[in-house]
Amino acid sequence: MSPNPSPPAADLQADFPFDYAAHLAGGRRMGRLPERAEGPRIAVVGAGGSGLAAAYELLRAGGRPVVYEAEHSTDGPGGRRLGGRMYSRRLEENDSAVVELGCMRFPDSATLLHHYGGTFGVRFAPFRENYAAATPLTVLDIDGRQYPAREIDDLYDLNDDFREAHTRWRAALTRIGLFQLQRDLAARETAAVRQRWREVVTRFELWTFYRFLRDPEGAGLTHDQARVLGTAGVGPAAWDAFFDLSMVEILRLLLCTEGGDQLFACDGISRLAEGFWTHRTTDPRGRRCSLEAVNEGVLRPAVVALDVEPQASRGIVVHSEDGRSERFAAAVFTPQLRLLETGVRLRSTEATTPVLGPRLWRAVRRLHYHQSAKTALVVHRPFWEESSMDGVTLTDRLPRASYTIDYGPPRGPGGRQGVLDLSFTWAQDAMKIGPSSLEERTALFVGELAAIHPDMAAELQDQVRMGQAVTVSWENQKNFRGLCRFSRPGDHAYQRDLFAHFMKDFAGEPAVPGEPPNALFLAGDDTSWSPGWLNHALASGLNAAWGVLRQLGSHRDPDNPGPGDLWHEPDYSPLSAP
Amino acid sequence: MSPNPSPPAADLQADFPFDYAAHLAGGRRMGRLPERAEGPRIAVVGAGGSGLAAAYELLRAGGRPVVYEAEHSTDGPGGRRLGGRMYSRRLEENDSAVVELGCMRFPDSATLLHHYGGTFGVRFAPFRENYAAATPLTVLDIDGRQYPAREIDDLYDLNDDFREAHTRWRAALTRIGLFQLQRDLAARETAAVRQRWREVVTRFELWTFYRFLRDPEGAGLTHDQARVLGTAGVGPAAWDAFFDLSMVEILRLLLCTEGGDQLFACDGISRLAEGFWTHRTTDPRGRRCSLEAVNEGVLRPAVVALDVEPQASRGIVVHSEDGRSERFAAAVFTPQLRLLETGVRLRSTEATTPVLGPRLWRAVRRLHYHQSAKTALVVHRPFWEESSMDGVTLTDRLPRASYTIDYGPPRGPGGRQGVLDLSFTWAQDAMKIGPSSLEERTALFVGELAAIHPDMAAELQDQVRMGQAVTVSWENQKNFRGLCRFSRPGDHAYQRDLFAHFMKDFAGEPAVPGEPPNALFLAGDDTSWSPGWLNHALASGLNAAWGVLRQLGSHRDPDNPGPGDLWHEPDYSPLSAP
Repeated sequence: MSPNPSPPAADLQADFPFDYAAHLAGGRRMGRLPERAEGPRIAVVGAGGSGLAAAYELLRAGGRPVVYEAEHSTDGPGGRRLGGRMYSRRLEENDSAVVELGCMRFPDSATLLHHYGGTFGVRFAPFRENYAAATPLTVLDIDGRQYPAREIDDLYDLNDDFREAHTRWRAALTRIGLFQLQRDLAARETAAVRQRWREVVTRFELWTFYRFLRDPEGAGLTHDQARVLGTAGVGPAAWDAFFDLSMVEILRLLLCTEGGDQLFACDGISRLAEGFWTHRTTDPRGRRCSLEAVNEGVLRPAVVALDVEPQASRGIVVHSEDGRSERFAAAVFTPQLRLLETGVRLRSTEATTPVLGPRLWRAVRRLHYHQSAKTALVVHRPFWEESSMDGVTLTDRLPRASYTIDYGPPRGPGGRQGVLDLSFTWAQDAMKIGPSSLEERTALFVGELAAIHPDMAAELQDQVRMGQAVTVSWENQKNFRGLCRFSRPGDHAYQRDLFAHFMKDFAGEPAVPGEPPNALFLAGDDTSWSPGWLNHALASGLNAAWGVLRQLGSHRDPDNPGPGDLWHEPDYSPLSAP
Repeated sequence: MSPNPSPPAADLQADFPFDYAAHLAGGRRMGRLPERAEGPRIAVVGAGGSGLAAAYELLRAGGRPVVYEAEHSTDGPGGRRLGGRMYSRRLEENDSAVVELGCMRFPDSATLLHHYGGTFGVRFAPFRENYAAATPLTVLDIDGRQYPAREIDDLYDLNDDFREAHTRWRAALTRIGLFQLQRDLAARETAAVRQRWREVVTRFELWTFYRFLRDPEGAGLTHDQARVLGTAGVGPAAWDAFFDLSMVEILRLLLCTEGGDQLFACDGISRLAEGFWTHRTTDPRGRRCSLEAVNEGVLRPAVVALDVEPQASRGIVVHSEDGRSERFAAAVFTPQLRLLETGVRLRSTEATTPVLGPRLWRAVRRLHYHQSAKTALVVHRPFWEESSMDGVTLTDRLPRASYTIDYGPPRGPGGRQGVLDLSFTWAQDAMKIGPSSLEERTALFVGELAAIHPDMAAELQDQVRMGQAVTVSWENQKNFRGLCRFSRPGDHAYQRDLFAHFMKDFAGEPAVPGEPPNALFLAGDDTSWSPGWLNHALASGLNAAWGVLRQLGSHRDPDNPGPGDLWHEPDYSPLSAP
């Protein structure tokens, strides 16, 4: 038994504990645009989670969102790929198996995600996360030795460094109040959350995760203990790839995962993107509508430039790579912000007023992204059952983390039902195999997994011959250039400004000093407080939608205030950098 | 005037202050192999600085080094490229201009490098480093404003944040004894060096550079001050790309650069590699010899596997990609260590004795590498003269650092003499443009430089049309996978073990506990204490050569002890991790 069982994972975010799911519950809308013959046209750049959520809610409030997407897909709307980092690949029509190249696991605490999942009929089931109840076995392989475990505490008897490290780690988290924060978030004690979170941010924003592990005022571990904890997947697998992040970023991650379970989407998380696109909802006048219909069934091509008017009321002209230019009442920009330096030109129509002020540019330029690579093998059947591979393998070798997923009976004859994630890596580990081809990666990872599971060596080689492998390195993708942003010490000020951008000056003064109040709204995972989670990416889209609605004349609903309406409430106003 | 003028940059390395240049001065050899009809054959994997230095000294001691190289070059020996990260490209025969894709600047304190440079007739001249005497102008561009400076202190009057940051930074370095260390190293006061360095390592190994900048016990800066200092190029340009490194790694870098000047190689640093290869020297019996002659004019192709005998006396079998296998008395392995996981298989001929023990594998697997990208434009003439671009541009925008180099009169008609480094970036900044093509990079960087130097905008566009651009991203190169290793907090133990590997058990017990005493010797920049500097890469080759010579029967010369002979001396024995 773990010495400190966790309270439930938090469904609210500590920096801004707005309940987005409750805001939309019971079919409620985020606003209502003034009635005209036709709603205002709003450009949404990027058909990922945040863009689709923003577009969907703008549609429901009476707007006409027009969605642009740079990624291609032969079978997507207009030859474009829906979903962004919701990127599920079903390799053959009859496969039940789906390879999740982007986000693959979703905390059960992710209420906004589950709100939409429920609306669109997206099915979820328990993900076989390391040491989870759904996982028959997690094998930790470190320094050439294997430690098989059912629950994480099973490792206590097998590895003294781990016992000491894990015990101290849990005690340190208890001491700084992580679990109390979870309890307070669950009880909606937002004043208590705020007070404790302020203390945590003030004290630990400048600490790296590694410093917290080593420092006597943190967990006080030796380097070897930290290394073992980092490899054993307490939190995500290959935890040590996160050692350079701010301890506050780590705590955010823990708040929404510790004490909770992870789920996966049984038909692939791209189903959620399709749901946003095709689901028929109603506008405020009760007329049936869908994003698909309002966009005439196509996603527009990549945006190359935005001409932004200093006066928000004059809107924004969007230029796309097909040579088309169109003026919109407002625009929501959701791609990874690296694209603002390398792919999409932001131009002001007036030389003396920039589109973004110096504070936003600082944030855009100096944020840190993590590389990430995944290589998966689609196989006919869950051949790993009742072997040492029946679950998760965590290792200090090249693959770092290997997962097994059974998608159930195939959809037709010859279809395949199993996915073996040969390797899922971050940061330095992803860099190692960046220039390696699919064939090289597969051979390297299978070789290492065979060394960890010698009884499966021959079977693995057979499966490689019969199966089909697929790989991605997100940092090599020109529309992404990294999997996601994570904050290092000192990034809090940037995070705060990116999160605050949607507020413009709606609360009476610029939420980010010096930022011009034009009709451009940044959204996407990069603007959220908890990067890397779909739930928070969706919420960032709702923030932008709130800003657009306010900009275009929707009023505050006293019975259902939106995220911007609570901006200056003492428990919500985001903390400045310590 | 700077408040604390620096003593001269250190020519010795603080962790192991062995004087490699003195060891070789006056034509001295590192050893003398027992005389046989033909010297022992030794495999050297990698024709970069460390491999060539090792091979050259082994040749001079009576060995027969056989050099393997994975990189291709149409005009290199055997179709292979000499030099590794000494990688100079002269695009046209008549150009005097040379693009340095790898190392490009060399501290004047680099005595070992200058020993070889002198031997081989490599010409050096002052590099136009930011704020250096040789540099007419350094323009700092930050938050959209430009600050032109001749010397770094010129910025004091222009930017208050900079004045405060730089003053505090210099005071903090004085306080922790950086400049005293330089004085003690110059005076060969190795006992004083050792004592002070021990204090520094103990206190700051776990600190990041960023923590040192922010913490009141370091420089005590605000985040904005740290950001300005990081952009202003105090130390290398884009200093902020190094914020996550261990403060000790930063101090190592400062020790060999502060108070010194940087040089560049007038004909490209690849000339040094050619010097190692072609220079005719003598063996201990006075016979003329060269690496080129002993290798019959060709570099052997990429190594795919090494079969290592547990008994050092049985040597190592090297397998290369041409299907050839050959047994050698010993092998020096110099590629970036990522290749041990992804490119070259290390196999033991005896299942129970590994080639590397667990401590070395830990180091190999968990080291941190920095990405780096460079994009350069070769132009006919130094068009920047007497403009605001006549020197260096440092910026928080995409290019980060831009340098100008005049290579003097062309070698023939139509030849070009100027190189404009449009951008030289590290880490996160290099990631941003990883997937961008040469054309995209050039357009992006020129656009940003034109915004910083509006008077040069038209000229820049002309030069792009008439010039020729070239680019590299080292992390995308399959034989490198990063430009170089740098240590983060906690990496000291790994550095120490990698450095110590060449000692095997020659000092009576394994220098790295648990490491088997076979005939494989790691070398290369990754095994040095100061990664990223050619001088220290060369020294790492000499360490490996010392190990091979000892292994093959060369004896200690009491008048000229080698690096391993001083291993247990109290001022040399490397410090363990704090």
